Amino acid sequence: LSVSCISLTTDFGTVDPFVGIMKGVVLSIAPQARIVDITHDIPPQGVVEAGLCLKQSASFFPKDSLHVCVVDPGVGSSREIVLVRTDGASFLAPDNGILTYALEGRKILSANVVTNPHYFLPVVSRTFHGRDIFAPVAAHLWLGVNPQLLGPAAGTLKLLPTFPQVQWEGDTARGRVISLDRFGNLLTNFPESSFQGRRISSVLLKGRVLGGLSSSYSAVGEGELGALWESTGHLEIFERNGSAARHLGAKTGDEVVLTFAS
Amino acid sequence: LSVSCISLTTDFGTVDPFVGIMKGVVLSIAPQARIVDITHDIPPQGVVEAGLCLKQSASFFPKDSLHVCVVDPGVGSSREIVLVRTDGASFLAPDNGILTYALEGRKILSANVVTNPHYFLPVVSRTFHGRDIFAPVAAHLWLGVNPQLLGPAAGTLKLLPTFPQVQWEGDTARGRVISLDRFGNLLTNFPESSFQGRRISSVLLKGRVLGGLSSSYSAVGEGELGALWESTGHLEIFERNGSAARHLGAKTGDEVVLTFAS
Amino acid sequence: LSVSCISLTTDFGTVDPFVGIMKGVVLSIAPQARIVDITHDIPPQGVVEAGLCLKQSASFFPKDSLHVCVVDPGVGSSREIVLVRTDGASFLAPDNGILTYALEGRKILSANVVTNPHYFLPVVSRTFHGRDIFAPVAAHLWLGVNPQLLGPAAGTLKLLPTFPQVQWEGDTARGRVISLDRFGNLLTNFPESSFQGRRISSVLLKGRVLGGLSSSYSAVGEGELGALWESTGHLEIFERNGSAARHLGAKTGDEVVLTFAS
Repeated sequence: LSVSCISLTTDFGTVDPFVGIMKGVVLSIAPQARIVDITHDIPPQGVVEAGLCLKQSASFFPKDSLHVCVVDPGVGSSREIVLVRTDGASFLAPDNGILTYALEGRKILSANVVTNPHYFLPVVSRTFHGRDIFAPVAAHLWLGVNPQLLGPAAGTLKLLPTFPQVQWEGDTARGRVISLDRFGNLLTNFPESSFQGRRISSVLLKGRVLGGLSSSYSAVGEGELGALWESTGHLEIFERNGSAARHLGAKTGDEVVLTFAS
Repeated sequence: LSVSCISLTTDFGTVDPFVGIMKGVVLSIAPQARIVDITHDIPPQGVVEAGLCLKQSASFFPKDSLHVCVVDPGVGSSREIVLVRTDGASFLAPDNGILTYALEGRKILSANVVTNPHYFLPVVSRTFHGRDIFAPVAAHLWLGVNPQLLGPAAGTLKLLPTFPQVQWEGDTARGRVISLDRFGNLLTNFPESSFQGRRISSVLLKGRVLGGLSSSYSAVGEGELGALWESTGHLEIFERNGSAARHLGAKTGDEVVLTFAS
Repeated sequence: LSVSCISLTTDFGTVDPFVGIMKGVVLSIAPQARIVDITHDIPPQGVVEAGLCLKQSASFFPKDSLHVCVVDPGVGSSREIVLVRTDGASFLAPDNGILTYALEGRKILSANVVTNPHYFLPVVSRTFHGRDIFAPVAAHLWLGVNPQLLGPAAGTLKLLPTFPQVQWEGDTARGRVISLDRFGNLLTNFPESSFQGRRISSVLLKGRVLGGLSSSYSAVGEGELGALWESTGHLEIFERNGSAARHLGAKTGDEVVLTFAS
């Protein structure tokens, strides 16, 4: 395996030294390794959130990046750790469904269960496999170890349920808020690709009608609400220079209804 | 352009993967680029705060650093993105005044509007120019692209209002708290350079008189308030091993009055 | 001195630009320096917390790492800054006891007071020695400067009180919660090494009896409490996929009582 860059996505936070320790372990084995943080503030045990985050990030990383994802509520149990190679990127993660979204549309070249203690730290704890397994395995992959040496071929990978589909019904489509960002923008599950050739005449959320789509945040007045196609190609509801989440009291899972001009 | 180091200052936070994605894009184009985070916790849309932060930081970075600043409430509107070259450092930022303070006292060698899509990602979204424009342009600058190729010469840069001046009146000077740090220290707009040869006999804030200046935090007792010239050369009001902001209920904009010994 | 990696541990937080500025200073002097963050979210002036964090981290870093620790309530006072060389790692820190735990079990090769302004920034402020002293000294050490040139040999280093010992009494042992992590796991001062050959039959905390030890987090049911030997070799009390701290209303200092099977 040729690795250009190691990305890290965890729920370890940045207050405790866990992430720094993982980097220390990587550099102890592979002093030249290039390590990039995606985020360490996935909510504790937030497998779905981590999966979405990886999906959103991986395609913008260098070819042959290794994405290491440690959101691992099953640490120390019989859950497996897998290395999945695809065209363009590899993923090292617990087999708990975290890779579901990132693997969509990618061609899987190989998947191995990581079992060979030769590539682990000498002592493996019950609670910190990020340090004892993920970091040293990532470092050995950076150094070029053959993934087949990590362990046997994996069976079927565990998958998370896919997202609720948008419900189409005449001139309306019903979807949901699937995540919030720091700015209080509301990301929905409406993909731009499904709306080619239709003109959205209104967006309804929490009893508020927003009118049609905006071309940018600044197309509405200060403090007003709007909707647009955002950077991952989904419909986003925003408040200009404010928080739509707070403005609307909206949260993940809330229903959003679109109507079309006939 | 020769770039020694790319610094990043944004209001993206570190919970969402936005910063990691920007780094992924930079490294996809310029695998050896050296990237340093200044901060990603500028308050959302905090152009003034980002401007102060850059001013405070830029002169401590290596010669020929490129400072990339993405606090950009106008993203997707007609606001321009500029690359400003000065003696010693370059700045890539929206033309929204964010560079006002960092450019003070620097000689501007050139300023270009960034318009050439050849240096952008192939698809540019309406909401995430950090990923689609700033990151790839920074990477191309690291690789040595001539800034003139990015777009036409910029006109007059947008400027923020400069800070309220200190008001002198006989034996007193009136100024303000301009920012708070993590420790609850209160930074004021009194510059040490204006006080050469005068002895400050008292500092008044929120109805509290603090007496004269201290030489260090430890010159006052545990839990007591003091004032000193801090690391950017301004007067700072502190509580030893505590938070002056909490102690005094003080915030940005509060008036501070100094009196001098005659 | 040969330095493989510079780690940073501070209480500066990541909102203000202090850490970015320190890195800018290091790279201005030593452009190739490899810098790794351990954490910057030590509680303000948390010398004990920083000491524990360093202890937990240092042995997982590359041989010949330089650990720079700036939790420094005495900045600007007569407190000294020391460079301590041990077999395998060096430490640059204020002499305020912060190295107490990290130095346990290490052989000290030399300790120097850092006094030579030749290795500082030209102007040293009263409040930001991280920028003006620690960063440039670390950079010069990376470049290979002889530690003896930094200043005279240090006398006895300041030490923090060591942790309360576990109290043994017949078939019970009394200890304490010494820290909490992001997940709400409770770390205690019971070291696994003291319990060889004894079987723990119950763990008592805040009036709750937990039963015996678990082999992993997933050995108890969702939302249930358990105890296990965690990654630093101490007893940890956890809630599966939850927060034991919140579940029990527990905090640092709370008593924990173990009983043994006869």
